[in-house]
Amino acid sequence: MKGNNSKSTATLLIHCPDQKGIVAKVTEFIDNNNGNIIELDEHVDREEDVFFMRVNWELQNFLIPAEKIGEFFDTQIAAKYGMIWNIYFSEKKPRMAIFVSKMSHCLYDLLSRVQSGEWDVEVPLIISNHEDLRPVARGFGIPFQVFPINAENKREQEMKEIELLKNHNVSFIILARYMQVISEEFINHFPNQIINIHHSFLPAFPGAKPYHSAYKRGVKIIGATSHYVTADLDEGPIIVQDVVNISHKDSVEDLIRKGRDLEKIVLSSAVYQHIQRRTLVYNNRTIVFS
Amino acid sequence: MKGNNSKSTATLLIHCPDQKGIVAKVTEFIDNNNGNIIELDEHVDREEDVFFMRVNWELQNFLIPAEKIGEFFDTQIAAKYGMIWNIYFSEKKPRMAIFVSKMSHCLYDLLSRVQSGEWDVEVPLIISNHEDLRPVARGFGIPFQVFPINAENKREQEMKEIELLKNHNVSFIILARYMQVISEEFINHFPNQIINIHHSFLPAFPGAKPYHSAYKRGVKIIGATSHYVTADLDEGPIIVQDVVNISHKDSVEDLIRKGRDLEKIVLSSAVYQHIQRRTLVYNNRTIVFS
Amino acid sequence: MKGNNSKSTATLLIHCPDQKGIVAKVTEFIDNNNGNIIELDEHVDREEDVFFMRVNWELQNFLIPAEKIGEFFDTQIAAKYGMIWNIYFSEKKPRMAIFVSKMSHCLYDLLSRVQSGEWDVEVPLIISNHEDLRPVARGFGIPFQVFPINAENKREQEMKEIELLKNHNVSFIILARYMQVISEEFINHFPNQIINIHHSFLPAFPGAKPYHSAYKRGVKIIGATSHYVTADLDEGPIIVQDVVNISHKDSVEDLIRKGRDLEKIVLSSAVYQHIQRRTLVYNNRTIVFS
Amino acid sequence: MKGNNSKSTATLLIHCPDQKGIVAKVTEFIDNNNGNIIELDEHVDREEDVFFMRVNWELQNFLIPAEKIGEFFDTQIAAKYGMIWNIYFSEKKPRMAIFVSKMSHCLYDLLSRVQSGEWDVEVPLIISNHEDLRPVARGFGIPFQVFPINAENKREQEMKEIELLKNHNVSFIILARYMQVISEEFINHFPNQIINIHHSFLPAFPGAKPYHSAYKRGVKIIGATSHYVTADLDEGPIIVQDVVNISHKDSVEDLIRKGRDLEKIVLSSAVYQHIQRRTLVYNNRTIVFS
Repeated sequence: MKGNNSKSTATLLIHCPDQKGIVAKVTEFIDNNNGNIIELDEHVDREEDVFFMRVNWELQNFLIPAEKIGEFFDTQIAAKYGMIWNIYFSEKKPRMAIFVSKMSHCLYDLLSRVQSGEWDVEVPLIISNHEDLRPVARGFGIPFQVFPINAENKREQEMKEIELLKNHNVSFIILARYMQVISEEFINHFPNQIINIHHSFLPAFPGAKPYHSAYKRGVKIIGATSHYVTADLDEGPIIVQDVVNISHKDSVEDLIRKGRDLEKIVLSSAVYQHIQRRTLVYNNRTIVFS
Repeated sequence: MKGNNSKSTATLLIHCPDQKGIVAKVTEFIDNNNGNIIELDEHVDREEDVFFMRVNWELQNFLIPAEKIGEFFDTQIAAKYGMIWNIYFSEKKPRMAIFVSKMSHCLYDLLSRVQSGEWDVEVPLIISNHEDLRPVARGFGIPFQVFPINAENKREQEMKEIELLKNHNVSFIILARYMQVISEEFINHFPNQIINIHHSFLPAFPGAKPYHSAYKRGVKIIGATSHYVTADLDEGPIIVQDVVNISHKDSVEDLIRKGRDLEKIVLSSAVYQHIQRRTLVYNNRTIVFS
Repeated sequence: MKGNNSKSTATLLIHCPDQKGIVAKVTEFIDNNNGNIIELDEHVDREEDVFFMRVNWELQNFLIPAEKIGEFFDTQIAAKYGMIWNIYFSEKKPRMAIFVSKMSHCLYDLLSRVQSGEWDVEVPLIISNHEDLRPVARGFGIPFQVFPINAENKREQEMKEIELLKNHNVSFIILARYMQVISEEFINHFPNQIINIHHSFLPAFPGAKPYHSAYKRGVKIIGATSHYVTADLDEGPIIVQDVVNISHKDSVEDLIRKGRDLEKIVLSSAVYQHIQRRTLVYNNRTIVFS
Repeated sequence: MKGNNSKSTATLLIHCPDQKGIVAKVTEFIDNNNGNIIELDEHVDREEDVFFMRVNWELQNFLIPAEKIGEFFDTQIAAKYGMIWNIYFSEKKPRMAIFVSKMSHCLYDLLSRVQSGEWDVEVPLIISNHEDLRPVARGFGIPFQVFPINAENKREQEMKEIELLKNHNVSFIILARYMQVISEEFINHFPNQIINIHHSFLPAFPGAKPYHSAYKRGVKIIGATSHYVTADLDEGPIIVQDVVNISHKDSVEDLIRKGRDLEKIVLSSAVYQHIQRRTLVYNNRTIVFS
């Protein structure tokens, strides 16, 4: 079972230079300490000779207490193999902030998943550069903070946002059609923790007005792309993409309409993978253990 | 342009035995009366020799007043060709009732489209056989009426529902994962005006628990089907279907999770086609002029 | 019925500035002369105010003899509306030349459709810049001509190719993974009659080695694009596109392997639309009446 | 890298009751004997508590000689865990027989992949119940044997076929639109080694004329399904499925035409997974380690 699992589990994400025996060593570590492995997936990038692994196991009866697992693993295994690793516990819910501007479709989709219990995540706040979507936030009972941004106040406003996010222990951020470029300084506070949805099949049509460009180019398929945000606009590691067929009958307005459905589903799929700790970024590419 | 059009328009949906010259006659009727055709689509079913047509034109400067168009068209054209036809005006919003039970994903998706103005439709009420989703309805400010149904009270409750629907001038009904079979008597009050979402790729896995059946059969793709409701359960004319890939890794819970996204998008796509007056039912099949 | 039709038919493709009454006039012309319309599709590009139409009718009992239809139509209808039009007859098979280099998958796919009678088309010759695929051509019994091309002899070789194509009455050309840029002069001999397959989801990854670029960018979907060839490389009007999901597990070799299937199906789909006279090019976009 | 790998490798496919430590034990076995693991994938079916694993490693410098690996693995690992396993070597090409009737599209697709070197497989013979496709086989230089089958001679003819297949050391069989039911006795000679393509999205439309049934039902998507053949017609474990959108415009002939492309791609995808030793059957479901 991949989806929801009511048992208390730990998830370990690892990457390191490829070497013999890694899988054996890691599974031995879990087995020897009485962990029951639920899921294990590994991948070797043959071009870069890098080893990637995700393993998820039940904590019940595990000999090492949760707060010590990292230390033990690092000492006994990770250090030896030069591993970069993270451990996550099912009992600690991720805390997600949502950034929006004026379009509501992604916001509705995210909030309805949270409110209905589809996702095991907390949303302490929504941040916007406009007032427009306050009523949506209110309908779902989530605090809504507005930070209007212009060329002059951008850095100052971003600093306030970061402070607010840190105060709320936000662990990751969703840009749900947030129409404002985030500064590199901001991004550096949340490396690989900011997920954007771009309304095109990247790398086609980066930047502004992709549906207009798609219409003009006469493509027969449009797409949407969710990716981690990096300092290079629309160039970050891709998590999920999807597409929909269009035809000569479709106007720009039709593309925008069809695109809305794509955007919200693609963004939410990426958020799901992120929440489930199924994503690993390496060399501007995303491993998605799905 | 197919999408939103701010001008006042009329849409005519026609079918009749195929004969020579129908397109010419209908377009002549519109042209001669100063109508500017925006969209025209026709289809001939060669097996049944039936002609289908949808035409949409601007009413500005149209010589015949809106309320007389039907009469004129019937007298001058429809009678001669044995046409079955309907005319719709963009200025008269369809009124949609939503039936739900306990699952919220389709309801959220429908209501967010209405509330955000994505659809030009009115939702005077939500009907359920359970209390569970009242908070969702309240969040969107829509009246929510509960009619608990059991074997004994079914007919009586349905009669009350019909009365309520008629009182609210409801023109069509969405079954948004409503887990209760509608009686033939009820259906006859709303012929081809009740849209259901079934959580399988019909005709595969009709009836209850299709995701469990799909898992058991080991299919590699699951689907969802929206259709008009007829007296034969899950046998009505199909409006929209879509699918998603699955693998051996997916548990029944994963199928249910992936299926939710399909269901809401497929149902909403069908509702959109219906609202846009792009659907025509003939012989248990649906013409969708998209 | 869209597919194969054994009756003798004519197909008219039209475009002109949008005006009232065009559909009525054209259908009247066919009706009055005893033509039975099988398919009619029209489209108005609202941004450009251009009208497009495809109509296909049975010639049996048509009052105007086939060779005179063009003249009559032009005189009575087309001239008045400023129409650009073409007429095609089902009885005259299109003659297709195939250009290849070293990869065989598209060639096999095209030839097997021709040999099995799936397409009603003649292939008088295959042209290549390499010897490699001669055995494939021989297996299917089609003449194979090699024109090695380098920077010095390019113009001269192209002139010979054009002469050969004209001598064989070739009406259109398929570039089936032909790895050589065609000159503008060559293209001008076959405007909108040269179909290429590009192994990416254009406009993403134009030019050389798109699978390597796709791998490097870490996209989650790859595509293929068939388009009419214009003087701007990989910029011509798109006929068909399709995509396939990939994952982090896929190496460049896997993308190439998965891409082969896409390429051949997408190219053959475009050829089918072209042969069926379902395509109209306007403003670097393709109307596909499918 | 998943695709072609020029190095000599072994592939082990395993299933057994789920127990702790299996992955560790198997990888240890390979590591300790100097094997370099290229790919490892495992899956636990939580409903059945069954463990599945595929592991592929380089044989160069492996301490155990190829012909002894099975014995050593069985003695040291498999027996202890109650494993059912198979080992395959990249140096031993699978030998595939193709069964056909009158339709050629799948046959062309299979043979062109073999002839072009896309697949590392041998095709010693093609068997048919009709003469029609002999020229196709001849074009590709493959022996073609006809066994006309009727109610009376069926058993006798099948026995001859089996003998012929065994004489040619055929390891698996492709039914490439072979329109004749295979007997249970025949199937038992090749358990999970006969791959069929059914021209519908199973379990929808099993049996004869699925495109006609799909048309009649008015579905909006059609599919194709490749599966291992079992004694229950069209009920065997599914390997690959795919679908394509259709509309009300599509006649039965259009469905057949669109279906052909689906059928050949789906069948060839299944054959590829089989050749690559990526498939494991359990409980009428197929694990595909892709």
